[in-house]
Amino acid sequence: MSDPEHDRSLSRRSLLGLAGAGAAGLALGGGAGVAATTAALAGSTPDPGTRYAFYGAHQAGIVTPAQDRLHFAAFDMSVAATRTELISLLADWTAAAARMTQGLEVGDGSVDGDLLAPPDDTGEARGLPPSGLTITFGFGPTLFTDASGADRFGLASRTPPLLAPLPRFAGDALVPASSGGDLCIQACSDDPQVAVHAIRNLSRIAFGRAALRWSQLGFGRTSSTSTSQATARNLFGFKDGTANIKVEQGSAVDADVWVPASDGPAWLAGGSYLVARKIRMVIENWDRTRLGEQQRVIGRDKGEGAPLSGGTEFTEPDFQAKAADGTAKIDEAAHVRLAHPDFNKGVRLLRRGYNFADGNDQLGRLDAGLFFISFQRSPEQFIAIQRSLARDAMNEYISHVGSAIFAVPPGARAGQTIGESLFA
Amino acid sequence: MSDPEHDRSLSRRSLLGLAGAGAAGLALGGGAGVAATTAALAGSTPDPGTRYAFYGAHQAGIVTPAQDRLHFAAFDMSVAATRTELISLLADWTAAAARMTQGLEVGDGSVDGDLLAPPDDTGEARGLPPSGLTITFGFGPTLFTDASGADRFGLASRTPPLLAPLPRFAGDALVPASSGGDLCIQACSDDPQVAVHAIRNLSRIAFGRAALRWSQLGFGRTSSTSTSQATARNLFGFKDGTANIKVEQGSAVDADVWVPASDGPAWLAGGSYLVARKIRMVIENWDRTRLGEQQRVIGRDKGEGAPLSGGTEFTEPDFQAKAADGTAKIDEAAHVRLAHPDFNKGVRLLRRGYNFADGNDQLGRLDAGLFFISFQRSPEQFIAIQRSLARDAMNEYISHVGSAIFAVPPGARAGQTIGESLFA
Repeated sequence: MSDPEHDRSLSRRSLLGLAGAGAAGLALGGGAGVAATTAALAGSTPDPGTRYAFYGAHQAGIVTPAQDRLHFAAFDMSVAATRTELISLLADWTAAAARMTQGLEVGDGSVDGDLLAPPDDTGEARGLPPSGLTITFGFGPTLFTDASGADRFGLASRTPPLLAPLPRFAGDALVPASSGGDLCIQACSDDPQVAVHAIRNLSRIAFGRAALRWSQLGFGRTSSTSTSQATARNLFGFKDGTANIKVEQGSAVDADVWVPASDGPAWLAGGSYLVARKIRMVIENWDRTRLGEQQRVIGRDKGEGAPLSGGTEFTEPDFQAKAADGTAKIDEAAHVRLAHPDFNKGVRLLRRGYNFADGNDQLGRLDAGLFFISFQRSPEQFIAIQRSLARDAMNEYISHVGSAIFAVPPGARAGQTIGESLFA
Repeated sequence: MSDPEHDRSLSRRSLLGLAGAGAAGLALGGGAGVAATTAALAGSTPDPGTRYAFYGAHQAGIVTPAQDRLHFAAFDMSVAATRTELISLLADWTAAAARMTQGLEVGDGSVDGDLLAPPDDTGEARGLPPSGLTITFGFGPTLFTDASGADRFGLASRTPPLLAPLPRFAGDALVPASSGGDLCIQACSDDPQVAVHAIRNLSRIAFGRAALRWSQLGFGRTSSTSTSQATARNLFGFKDGTANIKVEQGSAVDADVWVPASDGPAWLAGGSYLVARKIRMVIENWDRTRLGEQQRVIGRDKGEGAPLSGGTEFTEPDFQAKAADGTAKIDEAAHVRLAHPDFNKGVRLLRRGYNFADGNDQLGRLDAGLFFISFQRSPEQFIAIQRSLARDAMNEYISHVGSAIFAVPPGARAGQTIGESLFA
């Protein structure tokens, strides 16, 4: 049910009218359910009219072809917040997200209304089309049992057995202020103003119940997730996502992304696990590294993205191939080897990350890298691959500075609240 | 000479070919010089094929219709850098900028070349079209005379008399690390990856001669600069730029933006002055303010953007109009009144700012606002208006945290270096 609905005519602009006409009487559930997205090829232009259904069996923003822009936010519940407030927050977030993803403003359009009240919507997305916005919610381990061991919301007994803080990995340099969180929201859109508007309004709705713990903006084109998308490049300048699970690969998605009822707990069936890792790239060192070394580290050539064993981008790597001098054509420590399913018991992830650039540090180095996001049926998939990457030659050029994990509940039907099954 | 050249067919993709064919033999100066841009209406889709000429009487990126994304960077010259190194840096920057704005990679495409050398270009924009990229260079006061009074580069005698650090304004809360700079580069594009790629490669080229002092990413749609662009909204949710100088207004541009030869110094004729102000918005307070107060502060209604004296967005404000109770319809402290040319001796600026969101602070408040950029014939224009704004009702909701001023030299002809006239 996360098929894109695509309808150029149904934009904020046409809904609201340039002169601010009311938005009553709209058929939100309409749309042809056309599966094609036009927000596709790297370098092509996403269609701002792209509109994805909010309600469905799964939350949107997972097998949705990756949009170009990200605003990700982690929240902590307020100290005094109650279970009732958590439930009401999720209901309010659901209602607002359902509207915003359809190109509508939060609330009933009081920007044209009551002068004596703050507008329901902050207004900066007024006049902008839906721009492919998806909003995806997740629950962190601390929502179930906090760091002090307290069961603040009566949820401890419902904790997914696999939902726990990630173990420490070799080379982790995590900043607590950029890690963890009781709740997360992933807002993706082809327009940053639309994604920022979403997180801002959801933060505002949370006021008094939850507050931002950390947040991250990203821009696109890494970890292509659809066969309709050209493979994009990360800030190392290499194509990224060639071997990613593609959303069109239904059997892989079913096997590796969605939590089946048999895994439990029941409330999470049809959901997924989201891992977020903020990976800073030591860009200046990388940029001074010779091309041959860059390619050895990645295991692919830079121009085409072909494995160093030969062929073109989508040729399967031949990890046995030897050069004339007897060494492996794809280095033993190459990223493509250590991350490959062949070396990880067949494990695959649906990666959905974004490049980031947060300005520069005091030494004049760009503070930039990859905000890695993956969705998987079990956190063990990520853990296995990340452990395998302990020997990754790339580690000389990266540093993991943020880390978080969330259980992503299934989608909701119209009238339901995201995560409702957790409280049933 | 800053007319956009627009040619869908001349993209990085088509130039380089998907398989990495060489880029030799291209007619960079070609293109029909069509003046229309398609990167126009807010909510419409910029054409990634949009390509602006780099060489011309004026630098591009000033009267170029504002693109959607910004990466702005301020640099300081290295402690030991010489005049010769400054000149060579500007030459290297010019050559790289001329290529990147045309959708080409820096250097000669060694991504496909020498395995024993680092690639000339970092590669992450490979395959992406020009995306309307402009790159604009400026010189800060400290390039001429540094904080200690030293004339490091033999330029003190050539200092523009009007180029001095901005005076302190009421309410300034400036962070030195986000202010000033010997040099600046404004990179604007409809694609953040293209803008970030430009700053990254220019930073890399500067290595050993200059280093990043601060940098800022922004996203678009504030301060519309073209009659072809719908007025965009800032993060207060209000339309911003209705009364801005539009690039089509040739007489206003000539009168208010370009430094005429009669103003001096001669090397700056055809250039401009760039003022950058990082203005943090106290978004949470604003969002809890009733609509009537928001509109009083701005002096316009939120939906349409019409002045509170009546009419529609482009109706001239009537500052004399009284409400039934005898009070001014447009408040005495309204932003639109205090910023209006009628209250500033007719002074106007070409504003070209961007919204920013840099994550959140420790209190869970979004770190967001307006990265204000204006171009003007004289810094006195900005200073006069900013002093007028000391009484602005908006000051309760904003804080100026960064400030910088730069003299922007005129454009260069092919074969020349940006700023060459400064050293003649």
